[in-house]
Amino acid sequence: MQKSTRPVDDIGLVEPKTKHFSGTLALASGSELHGFDIVYETYGKLNKECSNAILICHALSGDHHVAGYHTPQDKKPGWWDNIIGPNKTIDTNRFFVVSPNNIGGCSGSSGPLTINPVTGSSYGPNFPLVTVKDWVKTQAMLADKLGVDVWTVIIGGSLGGMQCLEWSISYPNRVKNTFIIAAAPKLSTQNIAFNEVSRQAIRSDQNFNEGNYYESDNKPELGLMLARMLGHITYLSDDALDEKFGRELRDGEIKFGYEAEFQIESYLRYQGRAFVDRFDANSYLLLTKALDYFDPAGDTEGSLSKAMAPATAKFMIISFSSDWRFSPERSQEIVSALLEANKCVSYIEIQSTQGHDSFLMPIPRYHQVIKTALDRIAKGLDL
Amino acid sequence: MQKSTRPVDDIGLVEPKTKHFSGTLALASGSELHGFDIVYETYGKLNKECSNAILICHALSGDHHVAGYHTPQDKKPGWWDNIIGPNKTIDTNRFFVVSPNNIGGCSGSSGPLTINPVTGSSYGPNFPLVTVKDWVKTQAMLADKLGVDVWTVIIGGSLGGMQCLEWSISYPNRVKNTFIIAAAPKLSTQNIAFNEVSRQAIRSDQNFNEGNYYESDNKPELGLMLARMLGHITYLSDDALDEKFGRELRDGEIKFGYEAEFQIESYLRYQGRAFVDRFDANSYLLLTKALDYFDPAGDTEGSLSKAMAPATAKFMIISFSSDWRFSPERSQEIVSALLEANKCVSYIEIQSTQGHDSFLMPIPRYHQVIKTALDRIAKGLDL
Repeated sequence: MQKSTRPVDDIGLVEPKTKHFSGTLALASGSELHGFDIVYETYGKLNKECSNAILICHALSGDHHVAGYHTPQDKKPGWWDNIIGPNKTIDTNRFFVVSPNNIGGCSGSSGPLTINPVTGSSYGPNFPLVTVKDWVKTQAMLADKLGVDVWTVIIGGSLGGMQCLEWSISYPNRVKNTFIIAAAPKLSTQNIAFNEVSRQAIRSDQNFNEGNYYESDNKPELGLMLARMLGHITYLSDDALDEKFGRELRDGEIKFGYEAEFQIESYLRYQGRAFVDRFDANSYLLLTKALDYFDPAGDTEGSLSKAMAPATAKFMIISFSSDWRFSPERSQEIVSALLEANKCVSYIEIQSTQGHDSFLMPIPRYHQVIKTALDRIAKGLDL
Repeated sequence: MQKSTRPVDDIGLVEPKTKHFSGTLALASGSELHGFDIVYETYGKLNKECSNAILICHALSGDHHVAGYHTPQDKKPGWWDNIIGPNKTIDTNRFFVVSPNNIGGCSGSSGPLTINPVTGSSYGPNFPLVTVKDWVKTQAMLADKLGVDVWTVIIGGSLGGMQCLEWSISYPNRVKNTFIIAAAPKLSTQNIAFNEVSRQAIRSDQNFNEGNYYESDNKPELGLMLARMLGHITYLSDDALDEKFGRELRDGEIKFGYEAEFQIESYLRYQGRAFVDRFDANSYLLLTKALDYFDPAGDTEGSLSKAMAPATAKFMIISFSSDWRFSPERSQEIVSALLEANKCVSYIEIQSTQGHDSFLMPIPRYHQVIKTALDRIAKGLDL
């Protein structure tokens, strides 16, 4: 069923699956969920020894569709298809790759769009706020159902990296190797500030109606669009924007009006509009809150090294030189804490121009670092 | 009439004045203004030789009220009172300081809030877009009326610095010394991107009504508030935010809701709300456009040094180490262009933690640099 034009290392058609979890899930906030679903994809096969399972944790606007295509008509593959597939860096001939969609999102796992079994209508703004800890807990429940006792590797970029950090603390015996990419041990004040502006943009949209907009024809699209435009600025580096758009004008001359004049304006508006077609505002609010709250050192008097004490995994921390959202210095905070806690950690800063988004890019040195590490792991060698 | 608690170097009560300019003003956009007003303040006295006049050019949200108080009840003095006054760094015993409000703003000079003499109602969104060049032109017209043929010094921070740059190109014979602080020769793509998000926030506010909201009880306050919140993030450095607010919670604990939880959230909301009380959304839109358009090298095939060729002033360029809106590298672009054009220029980077806002702060070394320069200038020595 693969198109003949697709490369041989393409994973081809993939299908999302769903696991239902009945019973009550106690969340970090004190709220409860009465049953929930997790949508996920898997690529490759789990071996008998259960020594080849890799968990991919997704970032803010990511989902479970990491590699391959859902239909032959799909124009784009999953969001990290450049690294996952047969003979690719994360080689699905060797590894069993699992990628769940986090609860609270809007891509299939239980979230604001889901029907609340208690009320019979969608949760909407009443879906409880979830935390990184909650996500990791539900991912562990999924692992149980999939028969994965121990992840050989867990990998995540950005908010995904925070989940990896939490996994290594919450379930030290279930993680052998942790790859934390373009992440931070907690948000900086500036990070929270940007999230807050995004949230206010959504919440002040005339169609938001305190989150009760599912029945309405008018969704808080302008607010969500603003949030995404702002996000995009922080995902790209100043240099990357200059290189890509500079001060180029759409029509070659200044028009002295408020239509998009500079190419960067068109780009941001386009990105914003495209986002509202695939994302839900209530989910976006909730996910930014999970980001804000994440702070594993919060339970250990601010000491990240104390927080990391339970971890037994080997760590590889990767940062990107041009990332100003989660700069290399933020990754180095994790490295320092791990060293102080006497953990095994390697660190590499990849030279890049694409800012925070670098973690999604097929930068040769970056993929080579992961490939080399996975080669060693596949051979049973230490990281 | 001064309060006894005020310091002796306080300039005391000051009064804004207005000059009306009749006739038609041709703007860079091709539009025309049929008569306009400029509101301004002056401190100190112009000497007979006209050798002590200093022009202060204000930044995006600044105005003509730079120093002193309008009433004894005022809680705050003008926005740069820490540097201007008798025996202060910009010593009003020695210098005649002039500070106009730029047209297009909302503090008294002609702008969207003003009555259009042609229609008899306020310009609103029909006030023409103005440029830095237009501002400088109208400032020169004001200088004519005030009897100032030559400015001994023109000083401006941020967008004010861009006006200084333009002055030295447009009116080289009317400027002896130019102090350009925390500025850039043009906006970067990222700078334009942030402006664009701010504009979209205002323009998508349900009360904006394409700028026709003056008759309405409901103004586009939420959009303007968002724009200001976003602005504030770019005015402060990451470190300054961390130092000032960190991840401090308002109520000491996470509440799992959308009320302001972190102190930074309260701060931004407060700053946003305070701004809508004093600023007009139509003006804000227009001012961000003037920023976007500024690019003196646009007329000289992208060469700033060619653009600077006409300048005869001596330049002092000042940047701040923690400024990421207009970083030291951006100031150095101006320095390099001036050197290439064989102009007389000195440059200093001030160590600071407060980001772009540093230019408003009484940082001792920063004020000392300006004081030393003005001392030499007052003595008739070269900068």
